[in-house]
Amino acid sequence: MQWKGIHESHEWQNLIQKKPDAAIKNLSPNRIQTRIIDAGGGLSYSYAAMDADDETIAILQKIADELQLIEQYKTLLSGAVMNIGEKRMVLHHAVRGTVIDPVIVNGKNYTEFYAKEVKRFCTFAENIRNGTIRGSTGAIFTDVVQIGIGGSDLGPRALYLALENWARTRGTLKLNAHFISNVDPDDAVQVLENINPETTLFILVSKSGTTQETLANEFLVKKYIGTTIDPAKHFVAVTSETSPLAHNTEYLESFYIDDYIGGRYSGTSAVGGVILTISLGPDMFKELLIGANEADKMALNTDITKNAALMDALLGVYERSVLNRPVIAVLPYAQALSRFPAHLQQLDMESNGKSIDRNGRLVPIPTGPIVMGEPGTNGQHSFYQLLHQGTTIVPIEFIGFSENQCSFDPEFEGSTARKKLNANLVAQIAAFAQGSHAEDPNKNFPGMRPSSLIFGKTLSPKALGALLAHFENKIMFQGFAWNLNSFDQEGVQLGKVLTKEVLNPKGISNPVLAAYAKLLGL
Amino acid sequence: MQWKGIHESHEWQNLIQKKPDAAIKNLSPNRIQTRIIDAGGGLSYSYAAMDADDETIAILQKIADELQLIEQYKTLLSGAVMNIGEKRMVLHHAVRGTVIDPVIVNGKNYTEFYAKEVKRFCTFAENIRNGTIRGSTGAIFTDVVQIGIGGSDLGPRALYLALENWARTRGTLKLNAHFISNVDPDDAVQVLENINPETTLFILVSKSGTTQETLANEFLVKKYIGTTIDPAKHFVAVTSETSPLAHNTEYLESFYIDDYIGGRYSGTSAVGGVILTISLGPDMFKELLIGANEADKMALNTDITKNAALMDALLGVYERSVLNRPVIAVLPYAQALSRFPAHLQQLDMESNGKSIDRNGRLVPIPTGPIVMGEPGTNGQHSFYQLLHQGTTIVPIEFIGFSENQCSFDPEFEGSTARKKLNANLVAQIAAFAQGSHAEDPNKNFPGMRPSSLIFGKTLSPKALGALLAHFENKIMFQGFAWNLNSFDQEGVQLGKVLTKEVLNPKGISNPVLAAYAKLLGL
Repeated sequence: MQWKGIHESHEWQNLIQKKPDAAIKNLSPNRIQTRIIDAGGGLSYSYAAMDADDETIAILQKIADELQLIEQYKTLLSGAVMNIGEKRMVLHHAVRGTVIDPVIVNGKNYTEFYAKEVKRFCTFAENIRNGTIRGSTGAIFTDVVQIGIGGSDLGPRALYLALENWARTRGTLKLNAHFISNVDPDDAVQVLENINPETTLFILVSKSGTTQETLANEFLVKKYIGTTIDPAKHFVAVTSETSPLAHNTEYLESFYIDDYIGGRYSGTSAVGGVILTISLGPDMFKELLIGANEADKMALNTDITKNAALMDALLGVYERSVLNRPVIAVLPYAQALSRFPAHLQQLDMESNGKSIDRNGRLVPIPTGPIVMGEPGTNGQHSFYQLLHQGTTIVPIEFIGFSENQCSFDPEFEGSTARKKLNANLVAQIAAFAQGSHAEDPNKNFPGMRPSSLIFGKTLSPKALGALLAHFENKIMFQGFAWNLNSFDQEGVQLGKVLTKEVLNPKGISNPVLAAYAKLLGL
Repeated sequence: MQWKGIHESHEWQNLIQKKPDAAIKNLSPNRIQTRIIDAGGGLSYSYAAMDADDETIAILQKIADELQLIEQYKTLLSGAVMNIGEKRMVLHHAVRGTVIDPVIVNGKNYTEFYAKEVKRFCTFAENIRNGTIRGSTGAIFTDVVQIGIGGSDLGPRALYLALENWARTRGTLKLNAHFISNVDPDDAVQVLENINPETTLFILVSKSGTTQETLANEFLVKKYIGTTIDPAKHFVAVTSETSPLAHNTEYLESFYIDDYIGGRYSGTSAVGGVILTISLGPDMFKELLIGANEADKMALNTDITKNAALMDALLGVYERSVLNRPVIAVLPYAQALSRFPAHLQQLDMESNGKSIDRNGRLVPIPTGPIVMGEPGTNGQHSFYQLLHQGTTIVPIEFIGFSENQCSFDPEFEGSTARKKLNANLVAQIAAFAQGSHAEDPNKNFPGMRPSSLIFGKTLSPKALGALLAHFENKIMFQGFAWNLNSFDQEGVQLGKVLTKEVLNPKGISNPVLAAYAKLLGL
């Protein structure tokens, strides 16, 4: 297949003529009731308040067909080398189960390999949780600390926070999870001050086994806890089988991923799975995988009005490349999703924050957006001012649920807190789309600010899995549409090279680096 | 004074001719050594890697003079009604001490009033910390929970996290602080599960005493803890003297602010002060005020090459309105500043995310930017890909320190973690500015991505105060330059009105609200 980008599609000239759909100023209840797509895991995707009219959507469908977006997804699922720069397969879907067929390449069944690892770490987690495996002083583990950065930190952390309350309410929160990521030693010390090494299990997560920050933090943690415990009974590794951390007696146990699970797509692999099964329980993690697999399967539909991830992707490309909107806001009305936007920042910006297409040419249109977000209603008291009345229009992805994770929610002044929360969410969608006229220009709301809504009954593990997969698949489809390789990250390399130069024991030869180093006391 | 915006200044036509300064592709050590401004509190502001040449800076100086930016600041400091929409003075500088003269308006000495409150809550904090004041069961307080949202949450939370490690290392961290903000009941329950009511002091923060989320959370918390304690001995209010929470026997004590301290500018008032003095100690908070006051005084300089906040402001306006860059990234190389960017999101986007000028006219140029950010090196493994190679240029504000807050930092592979952290920071500045040519277009870095750097010896309370004031003053100057009222937030009102409609006990009359409410089970 000769890939091409959306700007090279037959319909591109038609698409760029399209103006924002003024119908969102006067949304019809019918549009709200019909523009809904099942997103898997009990979730639905509503795009009634997106400013694309039916004609625009019809054009986007033609583009999806012409660019063979679903074909590309199927090619990826079959184990083709879709990460062309690094010459790797892209197999994160396979860790959630089979989407079409098991991935078997050169006689190796990857689907089976990942499933076996899930089984292994679920058993391990049970043994930690029930006290069969204990620390070197015989104490039962009460805390688990993940040492990792980037994809080995943001996804697992976001998922843990999303389900911590859920598990606590259901009595399955056994170990409290903590995370150390930054090479800033103040990060590790902050965590270490709050745990007891005798009852703490550490998970070292680095696919290559060479990540600078992670190894520095492992060393720092071991130095800090001194000889009170035997590290070989307290440290677990999650890594690839070719890394120096693999099959290494310095670790109590090792669980494996491989080069085909990109860091930012590894939340549902052992990278997220080990800490989640240990802290929240294996059942919860299995539910997460089921939800993600359900969303992965739904993403196969060639009809964009029946494929939530694909619709979200193409509407996003329209906002970014046609309407030239540089930023999207992800606004979950769920405190449990407090770090989900930070995870999506990596997922999206590291995948599609690129300018060179898969044929090595400069893309002449804007690609991946900048992602920001905080939970509502908090954000309403913060940056929503700009979203309502600022000079840049920011398309919004709202996320909301009918029910709480916890059961405690007494009525106050005529409504529960949950009801207040969702009333705010509903009000914001309408306020952004419709605006409100006032004579005083300061109190005038222009409206015409598009948003979508992913909604479901409650933020269960299954819903969370589907939510995660929805965004992974959305970003994958956007990469296909822009003809980008969404699975490498060459943009992080230069910084690594220059960092080495600054740390060169023979001194810094580059005068710019030397001058800045001096300012920072190096 | 008849206010006007930068686009109405004599020099505007000259400014918009200016192109990004290509000198940052080949930064000279001399430029790095000379483009530094003292920012107060031991901090300095480096703008060598900003893509404005000396001519641009000369134009910006002329604009600062013509628009009388320093005059406007002085007018504000004198107690003039600078929040014209709400007809209020803007007095947050006065809570840090005297900048030029005490603020005395209609016979009331506001500087004295705020200082008296500081003294009152410092004494109160001492009595909590030394056990003179105890809970209703006689137990010494070990935890303090702030209930507030927006400015009553983001600033205090960011400041607490910034100094928690500092205080712990120095033995002055007496009470652990927690925060409840979101109306989502999962937020409050999460915090309540981790504290013991008998040993917990709650601080209710709402200037008006009517904030929906805060009152709902107060009710929820009181309901949750039941009758184990007497709330009147465990709840403190921070509010205005005219609010229903003031002089109210349901509270153990009340501390006061007034309408002249905007929510997002209230971190150094009782809003931040009560919880910070209780948890970290009064001395630390007083140092914070000294640092902020130092920065406030430095912001009086009419020479932009000697006024860090003003230079930062005008370079930012150039990036936003002339080079049309919609987003800025704030990237602290300090884990302790993990929530500082979230606070700046509010500070900046709620202040200048506006389209109508102080004369009631539509501003024809882009105004306040979108703000994003996470600590380095974490961000390097996340969204930096887009910053290096994406299609949108994002100007960066780096923040860095020579020394850690904690003292534990063993050497690993030839360098301490602190050294690694700062080597990364230095490398990133150079990588963004200079880029690096490669034949493989995927590995090519175009460079020409501007950044500034605020740096100092260590993130002390004094440095933190100066850092906060730097950004407050920067944003104030930008508001003056765009001729915006940076001190109101009309953009948050419509959502409140529509929320009430959704919660109307008689049912929802607006069909759009009704249709969305149905999706969310309302």
